[in-house]
Amino acid sequence: MLFLKKEDIEKCFDMRAAMDASLEALKIYSEGRATIPLRTNIPVPKSEGQSLYMPGYVECDNGKDALGVKIVSVYPKNIEKNIPSVPATMVVLDAETGIVNAMIDGTYLTQLRTGAVQGAATELLARKDAKIGALIGTGGQAEGQLWAMLTARDLTEVRIFDIDFERASAFAKEMSDKYDINMIPTKTAQECVEGADIITSVTTSKQPTFSSEWVKKGAHINGVGAYTHDMCEIPREIIKEADVVIFDTMDGVLQEAGDFMQPLEDGYVSKEKYEGELGKLGLGKLTGRKHDEDITIFKTVGSAVLDVYVAQKMVEQAKEKNIGLTV
Amino acid sequence: MLFLKKEDIEKCFDMRAAMDASLEALKIYSEGRATIPLRTNIPVPKSEGQSLYMPGYVECDNGKDALGVKIVSVYPKNIEKNIPSVPATMVVLDAETGIVNAMIDGTYLTQLRTGAVQGAATELLARKDAKIGALIGTGGQAEGQLWAMLTARDLTEVRIFDIDFERASAFAKEMSDKYDINMIPTKTAQECVEGADIITSVTTSKQPTFSSEWVKKGAHINGVGAYTHDMCEIPREIIKEADVVIFDTMDGVLQEAGDFMQPLEDGYVSKEKYEGELGKLGLGKLTGRKHDEDITIFKTVGSAVLDVYVAQKMVEQAKEKNIGLTV
Repeated sequence: MLFLKKEDIEKCFDMRAAMDASLEALKIYSEGRATIPLRTNIPVPKSEGQSLYMPGYVECDNGKDALGVKIVSVYPKNIEKNIPSVPATMVVLDAETGIVNAMIDGTYLTQLRTGAVQGAATELLARKDAKIGALIGTGGQAEGQLWAMLTARDLTEVRIFDIDFERASAFAKEMSDKYDINMIPTKTAQECVEGADIITSVTTSKQPTFSSEWVKKGAHINGVGAYTHDMCEIPREIIKEADVVIFDTMDGVLQEAGDFMQPLEDGYVSKEKYEGELGKLGLGKLTGRKHDEDITIFKTVGSAVLDVYVAQKMVEQAKEKNIGLTV
Repeated sequence: MLFLKKEDIEKCFDMRAAMDASLEALKIYSEGRATIPLRTNIPVPKSEGQSLYMPGYVECDNGKDALGVKIVSVYPKNIEKNIPSVPATMVVLDAETGIVNAMIDGTYLTQLRTGAVQGAATELLARKDAKIGALIGTGGQAEGQLWAMLTARDLTEVRIFDIDFERASAFAKEMSDKYDINMIPTKTAQECVEGADIITSVTTSKQPTFSSEWVKKGAHINGVGAYTHDMCEIPREIIKEADVVIFDTMDGVLQEAGDFMQPLEDGYVSKEKYEGELGKLGLGKLTGRKHDEDITIFKTVGSAVLDVYVAQKMVEQAKEKNIGLTV
């Protein structure tokens, strides 16, 4: 049994590796070669928590098939005890024998793969000469998102917006030290978004976090937050205006992402607007950006296919490099 | 994170503890205070295997609530590789925080709790003066079944039958050394069953493993194998004749146990024949055996409620006694 903590993963698996693995996972998913059952949700009323079980199996061409389950608990009251409110653990099985063979810090896995899927989309959809990034929201997933944007394109500047300006400033300071790039906290979302080549929103907002009028021609937009029907961060006007709209999984987005479900439900956009899945784009079955002036949108709500596949690749890397604790 | 191997569990958790925990789990289940979602089954065709995920949550009056998931893989081809064909791992969460805090050898947990639930039923249903046991089937669950019978009643002799007499003899020899009791391998099921006070059948047979005519008045019968619609080990005549028929869970038996489903489906017995759950018997809401001459039957197909609750009790005992490996 191999144990991988965040520090172990950092030694053997970077954002580049996570982006490649995430795209590969979505390609396999789009080809119908992954089994991702509905997640099981157990309410734990006494602690006002929920315990989620997300198993999956992914057939792989090279290397071993991937099999496992991510266990995620959503316990808002943990904050009062000064422990993480969304603790997560990834349990990895050897698909050839069915034996549990690794446990991975699921919180870091989630951060990395949530960034990585955006990075993979940005790499395929954003203009090659993109220089200015905009990041809206500085919560737990923000750093992964930033890292992915910087890995996908050679940015010279990233603007940071949060409804709490002090939080945005602190995040910008910390990240500019760590990633050695010019980070600019902004007081308004407009300052953040106007002129940006890549816009990533990662919030739980119930109203759009920016206006379509601020988006420049040729921009690429990532919607990473908004994972329930009543959440909405991407303005519907820009969805209608966009030339390309791609999702991580069609099923997932149309079941969970309020900002993309609502305009469809009330007829503001037609189903044809939603072109397809990132995996199909990666497979060359969709075209993506055609012109420099195109506005492209990627929306992700995540899927166990990402967890299971990325985790398997982490285990392979860690074993190859003899990293982690073996019990 | 606490790791408990079979050897660790043996040091801190015996059959007596497992029987008490199993009955308590079923009491809570029968009171509707356990959440046991449908298990998730992922086929892994490349290895001709299946990977099963069985999560559950059990509210407890004393001590901590129990939360976790048992992961069981059914890989018949593992035998060729000389590794277990049904490897299992129990992942235990702290229900108060949602954090994964222990991993337990799921194969041993299954053996122990499958024996224990029978032991708890035998203790409540068999005649107090039962002396002769009969065990049909000597596969992976047989030792747990034997141990439970010996814990439930002060037996002086146990007859052992298997379709493979050599296997029965070897099992009887090994067990008589280990449990210091008279074990008699028999060449026929009739020799095994006739005159026995407690009869336990634990096979995957598709036809009854004994005849109702061999069962003496006052006997208690346990059906532990037969977990699919086409399996059948308990003869339908004895089900009809029995004075008391009790299940571990009504839902489970009526969905999985062929020997109890078939007679109901073709009208050989009526629904009223199936009195209720062991948990209700434990709570005093059912009467059970009324006379020494009564024939009683208990049927179990197992439930995640047993795994989750028994595992939590194992963790509590191991922590109290400082047993197991903490990582």
